[in-house]
Amino acid sequence: MARERQFSRRSLLGGAAAAAGAVTLAGTGAGTAAAATTRDVDVAVIGGGIAGLTAARDLVAGGKTVAVLEARNRVGGRVVNLSLANGGVTEGGGEFIGPTQDRIKALADSLGVATFTTYNTGKNLLYKDGTRTPYATDGLLGSVPPVDAAGLANAAIVQAKLDDMAKTVPVDAPWTAPKAAEWDKQTFESWLNANAIVPSAKFLLDVACTSIFSAQPRELSLLYVLFYIAAAGNESTAGTLERLTDTANGAQESRFVGGSQQVPIKLAATLGDRVVLSAPVRSVTQSGVKYVVSADGATVTARKVVVAVPLPLTGRIAFDPLLPAARDQLSQRMPMGSIGKAIAVYDTPFWRADGLNGQVVSDSGVVRSTFDNSPPDASYGALMGFIEADEMRAYDASSADEVKAAVLKDYVTYFGDKAKSPSSFVLQRWDNEGFSRGGPVAYAPPGVLTEYGAALRKPFGGIHWAGTETSTYWTGFMDGAVRSGERVAKEVLAAL
Amino acid sequence: MARERQFSRRSLLGGAAAAAGAVTLAGTGAGTAAAATTRDVDVAVIGGGIAGLTAARDLVAGGKTVAVLEARNRVGGRVVNLSLANGGVTEGGGEFIGPTQDRIKALADSLGVATFTTYNTGKNLLYKDGTRTPYATDGLLGSVPPVDAAGLANAAIVQAKLDDMAKTVPVDAPWTAPKAAEWDKQTFESWLNANAIVPSAKFLLDVACTSIFSAQPRELSLLYVLFYIAAAGNESTAGTLERLTDTANGAQESRFVGGSQQVPIKLAATLGDRVVLSAPVRSVTQSGVKYVVSADGATVTARKVVVAVPLPLTGRIAFDPLLPAARDQLSQRMPMGSIGKAIAVYDTPFWRADGLNGQVVSDSGVVRSTFDNSPPDASYGALMGFIEADEMRAYDASSADEVKAAVLKDYVTYFGDKAKSPSSFVLQRWDNEGFSRGGPVAYAPPGVLTEYGAALRKPFGGIHWAGTETSTYWTGFMDGAVRSGERVAKEVLAAL
Repeated sequence: MARERQFSRRSLLGGAAAAAGAVTLAGTGAGTAAAATTRDVDVAVIGGGIAGLTAARDLVAGGKTVAVLEARNRVGGRVVNLSLANGGVTEGGGEFIGPTQDRIKALADSLGVATFTTYNTGKNLLYKDGTRTPYATDGLLGSVPPVDAAGLANAAIVQAKLDDMAKTVPVDAPWTAPKAAEWDKQTFESWLNANAIVPSAKFLLDVACTSIFSAQPRELSLLYVLFYIAAAGNESTAGTLERLTDTANGAQESRFVGGSQQVPIKLAATLGDRVVLSAPVRSVTQSGVKYVVSADGATVTARKVVVAVPLPLTGRIAFDPLLPAARDQLSQRMPMGSIGKAIAVYDTPFWRADGLNGQVVSDSGVVRSTFDNSPPDASYGALMGFIEADEMRAYDASSADEVKAAVLKDYVTYFGDKAKSPSSFVLQRWDNEGFSRGGPVAYAPPGVLTEYGAALRKPFGGIHWAGTETSTYWTGFMDGAVRSGERVAKEVLAAL
Repeated sequence: MARERQFSRRSLLGGAAAAAGAVTLAGTGAGTAAAATTRDVDVAVIGGGIAGLTAARDLVAGGKTVAVLEARNRVGGRVVNLSLANGGVTEGGGEFIGPTQDRIKALADSLGVATFTTYNTGKNLLYKDGTRTPYATDGLLGSVPPVDAAGLANAAIVQAKLDDMAKTVPVDAPWTAPKAAEWDKQTFESWLNANAIVPSAKFLLDVACTSIFSAQPRELSLLYVLFYIAAAGNESTAGTLERLTDTANGAQESRFVGGSQQVPIKLAATLGDRVVLSAPVRSVTQSGVKYVVSADGATVTARKVVVAVPLPLTGRIAFDPLLPAARDQLSQRMPMGSIGKAIAVYDTPFWRADGLNGQVVSDSGVVRSTFDNSPPDASYGALMGFIEADEMRAYDASSADEVKAAVLKDYVTYFGDKAKSPSSFVLQRWDNEGFSRGGPVAYAPPGVLTEYGAALRKPFGGIHWAGTETSTYWTGFMDGAVRSGERVAKEVLAAL
């Protein structure tokens, strides 16, 4: 308990990284800022998340010298393993992998990180209007959640409409969709109000929206939502809303053995001391044909710079010369969603014996969507709940104990009294993390994609852009991060 | 011409300040960063615009020691005088003052800066569908612009509706309006599409919107628009849309003798070397009961900190401890509009002889709204055009010569061939200014005010917030800046 409390307090201060330090540094060979004050390389990569590390891997493979400057004292960015009091590991950030996410799969395979199927045996739970209803389904919209027939019919029509509209949105240039202007003028909420006219259908779409974006429908451009659906596929498979929301056959289908951060940790290990930790970059200054990248405790000169940090944070680096107005104003206009994860650990995954798969869809509480996050051998049970959008904002400034109490109240409502007393409890609030400031991804309100989308990947001199926000497929996911790293490395290699 | 070109080039590089340096520093007694490395004061003020300077004035009057750290080599922020080749002065930023703007008036009076009436004699011009129509009116919506009768009737109804809705929006807490949730779920565009159903009415409202916000209706929350209308008044006078758009009896009624920057220049002079120029603040670190405010070339320790910079730029300062998530995510969610001003100088205000007041409303071109910016004695003529929202974005990355050519083409369309060859031409693009990154104000897309509005003025420890964005009246105007400075000084004095 003492260990758990200490952990929670660190997490509250935005330092889950500190607690996870031992895990993240072991075996990476990554240098510290103190050991690496000045370097001269071909390419400086800002950000040691999956995007930046992937770019670095490909640049090294292309024969270039590289330095990766990572602000935290760990790699992985929005992907982090958290140590549990029982010796296990859980995941504070991105954790799932699913079909068509080929690039994260290939990367994990190359690093020897295996996957296992997300626990999905038994019934889901719908908690709505104070009633708890187990139901057999696969994912939120995939099958038959027990709402009224009119709602189901309406939801199915809305889902089909969104998928059809998404098919007309080019993932590499959503602003060129035939109806881009019309769709970028309205919020997703305005469109839902006109189309999801049965209340239970609106409920299902609202939950889908907050689950996917950690933002409310009123915050999102309809065009951006359609782009995101279109991006939930690959070059040969059209994206669908169902693939975003489903467990089996969807984006939540599988997990990584040892925790998702194994991927960036092992990737960083292949880069050795090219990765500099605890080196937040403050400025990028052009000096002749080179750039001077200045971080706390480290300075790197480079011919090219790859920026692979969350989009809104790019504007927090002082560029000289200044970024073009379009890129700067884009970074002002795509904010991070609001997200946290709460993992309660129990001696056993007791809900399985009750015939439940641990997945909840709820209309109330601080946690409205849960997963069974137990390890593959079920040596202990772990219930993971997302805290999203309005709920996260309501609890961002609360004490860790207050959040824990609210979460466990929900878990008891969903899974009964056995949920009341976990052996440990881990909370990760991304809004409070200084080098993320929200999650899972930066989204676009109305009017942004059509006016600023073209600035997303456009290089500025020798400065190139990566990060999951810049991906054409699976933006917002680990797969998108990998794709963006691979794309930017190609760009830079061609330019060097 | 050589001087003009040199000026334009500086402006292109975001350094209109450099050209105006002689003007801005003369007589202020402001120190330079080199001369002022370390100071210990009661209050550090970040930002030497009208808000920060006003706060400093009141704090000094309250007996406190103060240091104002200003990033540029001039004071005034979004208010700047620009030197003309003919020896005159024009204004690159905020320039107008109107009824109910009591606080900027009182400040100007106290500093001996007089006002004069904006030139408003003669007819306006409507340029629409390729036709140029002079008309007698006062302001955009104030009288009878020559669109079709159905459009006029529709626009009048829409205007009255907006004013009525705005009356229910409390300026100090718009998120508590009875219909706040409904109005914050939609873009202004969605609402206009349902209400401004006659095309010519929609045109008038669109022009009003871009003129006021330098943003398109699709970018704005309806609730934010209503708040902005409500804020266009004072404690005893309800805000109206007409007061925002009008010249006579409106926000464009008068100007300042010697240029609007006379106000911050003279205000800074009263503060002497408390104002440190060329000192962009990079970090604010709490250390015991004090804060260490670190700027390029200057470090100030203080018990309280007032942040008076454009809202989106607050997130670019590295705070330790981190800002609360609500304040940081607010700074991610309220972007600056996109705005520039183009001033063409002629030997005489020749349009006056043609019976025109120099004010245009247009449906095309890069400049769609103009004013007669000639000096009070009309010793030369100056046509000032706003470049706003989509038009500014289209020209942010163009060369100054390209913008000049596009602007003069418009001026010739509106005012005839005499407009073709100005004696000089000044361009100020706020999107390209590193310490503004847009203008005139940070606006709220849907979903922001209801979720984050409460974070706008909420102090964080000893850190307090000012700037026109934080004002309850005349946010986006110089008057709002003054009000915010006066309010924050009271807050800080009460806390010290």
